Amino acid sequence: MNGGAGTMRTFRLTLAYDGTGLVGWQRQPTGTSVQGLLEDALATLDGRVVPVAGAGRTDAGVHALGQVASLTMLRDIDAATLRRALNFHLPPPVRVLDVAPVDASFHARFNARSKTYRYQVWNGHVVPPMLRSYVWHVAAPDLDLEVMQRGARALEGLHDFAAFQSVGSDVLTTERRVLSSRVHLADMSGSGGMAGLDSSAGRLVCYEVTADGFLRHMVRSMAGTLVEIGQRRYPPDRLTAILESKQRPQAGRTAPAHGLVLVKVMF
Amino acid sequence: MNGGAGTMRTFRLTLAYDGTGLVGWQRQPTGTSVQGLLEDALATLDGRVVPVAGAGRTDAGVHALGQVASLTMLRDIDAATLRRALNFHLPPPVRVLDVAPVDASFHARFNARSKTYRYQVWNGHVVPPMLRSYVWHVAAPDLDLEVMQRGARALEGLHDFAAFQSVGSDVLTTERRVLSSRVHLADMSGSGGMAGLDSSAGRLVCYEVTADGFLRHMVRSMAGTLVEIGQRRYPPDRLTAILESKQRPQAGRTAPAHGLVLVKVMF
Repeated sequence: MNGGAGTMRTFRLTLAYDGTGLVGWQRQPTGTSVQGLLEDALATLDGRVVPVAGAGRTDAGVHALGQVASLTMLRDIDAATLRRALNFHLPPPVRVLDVAPVDASFHARFNARSKTYRYQVWNGHVVPPMLRSYVWHVAAPDLDLEVMQRGARALEGLHDFAAFQSVGSDVLTTERRVLSSRVHLADMSGSGGMAGLDSSAGRLVCYEVTADGFLRHMVRSMAGTLVEIGQRRYPPDRLTAILESKQRPQAGRTAPAHGLVLVKVMF
Repeated sequence: MNGGAGTMRTFRLTLAYDGTGLVGWQRQPTGTSVQGLLEDALATLDGRVVPVAGAGRTDAGVHALGQVASLTMLRDIDAATLRRALNFHLPPPVRVLDVAPVDASFHARFNARSKTYRYQVWNGHVVPPMLRSYVWHVAAPDLDLEVMQRGARALEGLHDFAAFQSVGSDVLTTERRVLSSRVHLADMSGSGGMAGLDSSAGRLVCYEVTADGFLRHMVRSMAGTLVEIGQRRYPPDRLTAILESKQRPQAGRTAPAHGLVLVKVMF
């Protein structure tokens, strides 16, 4: 514990949440948001409104394993106590994994250098019950992972991602740098019993993408397009043409929110 | 499809379910049971009451990855159609993974030679949100896996498990043969994003046990005792003394239902 009473303390929070039933990261007029839950819990601890900034503004239904948030408190409180107090106030679907004291200038959104998202697709006839809230069910046909992988790689690099942005977005630039864009099969053996057996019922296909920033619905529209490529509706080099078109209707459908997970934020 | 219309068909079903909110396998006067859901779905398909036998009568809140059930239908229906029709009628927490035609004499409970259960303990300060319905939270101290493993091994073999049976049970014999009784750490790397990150937040400790039969609450009271051994409240050789006592109060607490998973049934 550095500093005496009266000194402001800035903290970096690492959070995991099950987005099922939440309206997303950002506080909304109605519904339960992660930001709202955190700010309500902090208000009881600090006796005042404590604004919380999140690195990624996840949409309704999107999950997180490593969301990062920043906030500044007036109260003299150490990191371990803050973590325990927040987890006491928060509902079990939202957990604070870690709290670390940081420099007062730290801001989770402005200082984030890159983020990793994973999109999870269950490819098979029957969705394992314990995975049902975390995967998009694409029953048939068997996805061609090789062409999906080729398509995913074509998204790496500095591109204008306007074609993968939801209509009506308002940002200064639609250029983003994708550092890594890969498709892999999840190994189910170590899943702690969640996926079930040897799974003749299907495969968990994961699309994992790291970028310096994301446009609205960018991962979900890339995932939707990659699934259509895996279903051989488009050839994988179609992705380059979609990027060049800069037109949203050229890309595939926006995959549903509940298959998306914010995995990690890098600073 | 063998046989013509009018021939009775017996099927073996392999089922997975999320036991959260269910009253267990067996039909009860109130609440939703797996047996009740299946029988209601089958009644609409067969136009009559179709009794379903389950290999393991899992308690309220207990999950399954590989429950097995048997039933006989009058209607001329093939296995794949029956699986699709049942999954159409059942809610997403209950899924039929596989349907196979079997000999008319097959009975899921009487023909089961052994069953494997897994008990899942989250040992750490913070429970990952996506695992919260499937683990017992044992926050501290760090469980000593080596003494738990020694304790688990002491349960293998043919023993009188009366000390691990819930009070008020009524069975012919309390002798059971435990074929395998092991403690292991789940590998979280391949968990398809469910457990989260590298998990400084904790470890998933699994107790997996295979036996030719189980007494009521037997796995849960063995898991509760093993956790107390892992917390160094008892030495591991205490298990032998508990078995010999044949007295339920000698064993540890009954671990909660939602950490238990019926993994597999062998015939």
